[in-house]
Amino acid sequence: MNKNVKISFIGGIGEIGKNMTAFECGDDIIVVDAGLGFPDDTMPGVDMVVCDISYLIKNKSKIRGYIFTHGHEDHIGGVVHALRDAPADVYGSRFTLGLIESKLRENPGIKVRAVAVKARSAVKIGVEFVVEFVNVNHSIPGSFALAIRTPAGIIFHTGDFKIDLTPLDNNPIDLTRIAEIGRQGVALLLCESTNIEHSGFSMSETTISEHMDELFARYKDKRIFVSAFSSHVHRIQQMIDLAVKYKRKIAFAGRSMLKVSDIAIRLGEMKALPANIIEIEKVGSYKPEEVLVILTGSQGEPRSALQRMASGEFPKINLGPTDAVVFSAYPIPGNEEAVNSVINNLIFRGVSVIYESQYAVHVSGHACEEEIKLIHALVKPRYFIPVHGEYKMLKKHLQLAEGLGMNKRNMFMAELGDCFELSPTVLKKVGQIASGARLVDGLGYGDIDSSVLRDRLALADDGICVVGVVIDGRGEVLGQPQIVPRGLVYGNEIEKIIKEGKEVISGIVSKAGADIDELRNELRKGLQNYFQKALGRRPIIVSIIQKV
Amino acid sequence: MNKNVKISFIGGIGEIGKNMTAFECGDDIIVVDAGLGFPDDTMPGVDMVVCDISYLIKNKSKIRGYIFTHGHEDHIGGVVHALRDAPADVYGSRFTLGLIESKLRENPGIKVRAVAVKARSAVKIGVEFVVEFVNVNHSIPGSFALAIRTPAGIIFHTGDFKIDLTPLDNNPIDLTRIAEIGRQGVALLLCESTNIEHSGFSMSETTISEHMDELFARYKDKRIFVSAFSSHVHRIQQMIDLAVKYKRKIAFAGRSMLKVSDIAIRLGEMKALPANIIEIEKVGSYKPEEVLVILTGSQGEPRSALQRMASGEFPKINLGPTDAVVFSAYPIPGNEEAVNSVINNLIFRGVSVIYESQYAVHVSGHACEEEIKLIHALVKPRYFIPVHGEYKMLKKHLQLAEGLGMNKRNMFMAELGDCFELSPTVLKKVGQIASGARLVDGLGYGDIDSSVLRDRLALADDGICVVGVVIDGRGEVLGQPQIVPRGLVYGNEIEKIIKEGKEVISGIVSKAGADIDELRNELRKGLQNYFQKALGRRPIIVSIIQKV
Repeated sequence: MNKNVKISFIGGIGEIGKNMTAFECGDDIIVVDAGLGFPDDTMPGVDMVVCDISYLIKNKSKIRGYIFTHGHEDHIGGVVHALRDAPADVYGSRFTLGLIESKLRENPGIKVRAVAVKARSAVKIGVEFVVEFVNVNHSIPGSFALAIRTPAGIIFHTGDFKIDLTPLDNNPIDLTRIAEIGRQGVALLLCESTNIEHSGFSMSETTISEHMDELFARYKDKRIFVSAFSSHVHRIQQMIDLAVKYKRKIAFAGRSMLKVSDIAIRLGEMKALPANIIEIEKVGSYKPEEVLVILTGSQGEPRSALQRMASGEFPKINLGPTDAVVFSAYPIPGNEEAVNSVINNLIFRGVSVIYESQYAVHVSGHACEEEIKLIHALVKPRYFIPVHGEYKMLKKHLQLAEGLGMNKRNMFMAELGDCFELSPTVLKKVGQIASGARLVDGLGYGDIDSSVLRDRLALADDGICVVGVVIDGRGEVLGQPQIVPRGLVYGNEIEKIIKEGKEVISGIVSKAGADIDELRNELRKGLQNYFQKALGRRPIIVSIIQKV
Repeated sequence: MNKNVKISFIGGIGEIGKNMTAFECGDDIIVVDAGLGFPDDTMPGVDMVVCDISYLIKNKSKIRGYIFTHGHEDHIGGVVHALRDAPADVYGSRFTLGLIESKLRENPGIKVRAVAVKARSAVKIGVEFVVEFVNVNHSIPGSFALAIRTPAGIIFHTGDFKIDLTPLDNNPIDLTRIAEIGRQGVALLLCESTNIEHSGFSMSETTISEHMDELFARYKDKRIFVSAFSSHVHRIQQMIDLAVKYKRKIAFAGRSMLKVSDIAIRLGEMKALPANIIEIEKVGSYKPEEVLVILTGSQGEPRSALQRMASGEFPKINLGPTDAVVFSAYPIPGNEEAVNSVINNLIFRGVSVIYESQYAVHVSGHACEEEIKLIHALVKPRYFIPVHGEYKMLKKHLQLAEGLGMNKRNMFMAELGDCFELSPTVLKKVGQIASGARLVDGLGYGDIDSSVLRDRLALADDGICVVGVVIDGRGEVLGQPQIVPRGLVYGNEIEKIIKEGKEVISGIVSKAGADIDELRNELRKGLQNYFQKALGRRPIIVSIIQKV
């Protein structure tokens, strides 16, 4: 039997090796991560984007397990969609599984076995795979790199990582073990590339405390609000410790902040005495200097706790000159305007705001250039595929590997859907599988395709004009034609447009025959011409023609 | 007669004192700048945003002139809309007027006198105003600050500026004259704030040549493409000079690049021998090392020359491994994703790409913190209003002025529409005028209001469902109800939705009476409920009900 390993980059939006990757050998498939993506400007109304898993569904009987590197949404957010159609055991750290289980609880139909694993443990999955979990640092606890032992050799998958030698939990990335695995001989390295354009080394997470301490001292008479990613438990822990030091009570605000802090405290990843925590509704009964609020909204997300507070729409919290707000995260590209709008609203209310480069209150969770070099140097793989990153970053990662002495022929650029085959001696590209994105909108799963998005974008740009005509068997109009523009014209102009539009319609109907398709076609052309001349716009024309 | 001066911040989108500001004294009004803004995500389909000038239209007979600080679109782009409804003489540098005249040429109905002014010249405008033009540096030639002499004192308006002591045209900002004007006593300073969050001093424009020269040397065997703002004549001049040094022919690409370079060469602001310029169509007949292409698209703009080349949609230009593309501009916040997409496409084609922080191929045209301090120190105004900048920047500018020793009571935050009155002794806020943004879409001017935008955003998020029903006088349905969803469901699901939707409609019609408004209401409610349950979406429902 062929004991080569097939590696498939399944999905979903944009970056390979992030949302989902499948490894197949003999009769076994293991899947690393099941994440989601976020819709961009070309996908109005879309709630989220998951992977097209038709390849997994087709090979359902071979799937032996889902292995999660860590608990960020782009790695676990598609878990419900995956398990619904292609169920299997799930493996991950206790914290990752805690986050996954809270999703599964909302979908009681899904029954799978969850296996909590520890760093340095190795689990046999199916017949062909042994997966070893290697501790790494990242912006969420319980993050692993994976050493996947296969009949064709070891595949080392970094997951998302940084090298932090002084992390908050005294649990730095396991460089010793990575070196040992490198010694044993790694056939293939999959390494993330997110921050490869940043030179040097990332800062340690614990540098935050020092800078935040200065802010707690500076704003000792104010209420302090710190906005951070809810899954960034170590960041939040540092805020909690400072609150205790400065004798402030802690309140959490925002749905995901409440949910994740609850899970983290329950699992012992976050340490906070119940006596130090108050409900957000109670904040008003404390003096400013007695409270720290830790909340969502560092990306300016609409309806997040901070966005609502900045707009005066959060119950019982009125921000003003006795408040200080700290953004403990940088805006992700694309979110700058939303973040700026929240900042301006806050400053307008007289709040003291600390954001972006003003102060060192954020460090990245991803490895910079020198850290990535270090991993290459320890893993010393025979073959290499860069993952997690835009095309330009993956390309730069190849150059970095070349600079470290790797042969160009041993490295590959992969795209979504690409399949590679690893034998004990060779890695090569062997084809493509069904892959890519499925859009989720409302209850629908994958039912939004490009024609729907095209319609939505056209509707947003030019609006729509609905026309109603009733004709009899000879093609004579019965009653009055009707015309309803939406998103097209307003107020003063609308009556004129409706009047003229009706004349255009009557002219067309009187000339056309009794054929409905022909009449529909003529109406579309005639009205688009009219709107182009009258308004310089080309709305979608929908005509309802009824013959009675 | 009251010889106080009324200062009105007219519009249009976002930042005060940028698009348009009016100064009024006795029977005279002068208007500084007439710019436009660019639509944001909440304005789908909108082409541009101009100022609401109803205040100027009402006071048409008093307007003595429009004074333009410089030729960027956010300062001149609304000139046609302003002059159409409130015509008056226009004043500006030769280059600014060159750009304005090319707009007016497309609108032959507008006849106004254009007065070209030079730095250090002073022009009496109306009875009350003498406007002196002061040379400043910026990212476009012919930029002025204004010293407006009024019966109530001197108002100093910086326009957009930076301090460049080694500019390309050897014509640094006129600090001597600014110091003299400061000596004479300035009543009010309006100073721009764009880069106030950047500490230190901006880099000189001429530092670009040095870094670009290294790139010309590095890519000596490749075709070189440099993307920059078309109005950044000094940037482009440096590229032209390097092309001459490296014996490359120069081709311009992109509509605005062709237009602006033509104006700049004609007015002597740009120096290029005709023999060195070739048409973009001819580029293919030269070797890579013989050509420099200067083109639009540094912001990833859709349909710009660079975006089309990156997508393989530009006639006769195929980019590949023998090409190098330099982005000689940073992405403006909000454009990062569009720029990244162009970069990824270019790298995918094997092009060498130089962008952002990789190399010092861009410097800002706006003053940083220390430069702004210097202007305050020279102008030494009695009163101060910060302009050009988001709220947070204006606020920071006030703090800067306070740090320089200015009394808090002598400085004001202004908002769009605010009016201030300056007497020989006092500045105070006196009220508000009609102001703000008018949206231009197609031929329409100001005819897109918030209800239209709301409709468009709703259409984009959830789509629309059009329903057609014909009833007779007793409320009985004639023929079949019709249902047309757009931007809502697709393919496999659409037939099921239409079938079920028709059943919902029939059920409602059979219960409702013959009252059309009531039936319309019931259809809307019934179908929205149905779609919410079936799809989790709430489309706009438009029903065409005909009674025959």
